[in-house]
Amino acid sequence: MQNAPCPLCQPADGLNEIWRNAQLRVIDVPDAGFPGYTRVIWNQHVTEMTDLDAPQRQHLMDAVWLVETVMRNELAPLKVNLAQFGNQVPHLHWHVIPRWPLDTHFPDAVWAPPRERSPEQQLAWQGFHEQQEGLLSAYHAALRTALDTL
Amino acid sequence: MQNAPCPLCQPADGLNEIWRNAQLRVIDVPDAGFPGYTRVIWNQHVTEMTDLDAPQRQHLMDAVWLVETVMRNELAPLKVNLAQFGNQVPHLHWHVIPRWPLDTHFPDAVWAPPRERSPEQQLAWQGFHEQQEGLLSAYHAALRTALDTL
Repeated sequence: MQNAPCPLCQPADGLNEIWRNAQLRVIDVPDAGFPGYTRVIWNQHVTEMTDLDAPQRQHLMDAVWLVETVMRNELAPLKVNLAQFGNQVPHLHWHVIPRWPLDTHFPDAVWAPPRERSPEQQLAWQGFHEQQEGLLSAYHAALRTALDTL
Repeated sequence: MQNAPCPLCQPADGLNEIWRNAQLRVIDVPDAGFPGYTRVIWNQHVTEMTDLDAPQRQHLMDAVWLVETVMRNELAPLKVNLAQFGNQVPHLHWHVIPRWPLDTHFPDAVWAPPRERSPEQQLAWQGFHEQQEGLLSAYHAALRTALDTL
């Protein structure tokens, strides 16, 4: 893995970029099954939060809190899930995931197997999913405005 | 769920508590399959990080970074996993999980199904697991010393 090029150092995610500055970028995770799923990626190749110095760590977390704030304002999820794993790609990135009671995995983690749902529940989620997708451009615009204050 | 008593407000985890102050507590997650798995729990019943004010958020994250630092020093995991979900128990708590190449789920999330492993790999993990459990009292002592600086 260490010899392979890091996919977050040589990103193919340019089209999904919502905002960036010199330290970090914020991307939309497309086709994620969770409309509004957002990732905050530290630009430099660093593995752990405690590899950053305190001001860098603060800057990265301030971006994560801004994403959470705007996500709550614009998408009104029942719960926000935050995760920093990096087992597969050891380059610092945060998952910020809006969760709803109807979604494919609730109340389990999105990394767990999907739960059993009735055809009615699947249909209800599909409708809700489409409705949420309709909110994404306003969400991304509000994200850019908020992140410009970083 | 809102009518049931919150298990993090009325905790049965007293025996596993490593450290606490007025704002938060740090507990060992026993029998977790990941020796050193640690949870940082905000004492007050709050749902999201952005429900805290900035100094509270900073205090909670400073505790998480201290746990990560001591975990890396004492247990030397290949990777630290951080997560704040709260879908099942919407009371703010952080999972801080040490990960190793031999563990039951690596490189997947610990919430994913366990991966296939050969009998040799299982035996190697079992031996490593026991060795790591031998480090836990030193890890917890170092955690208490570090958290006393909070």
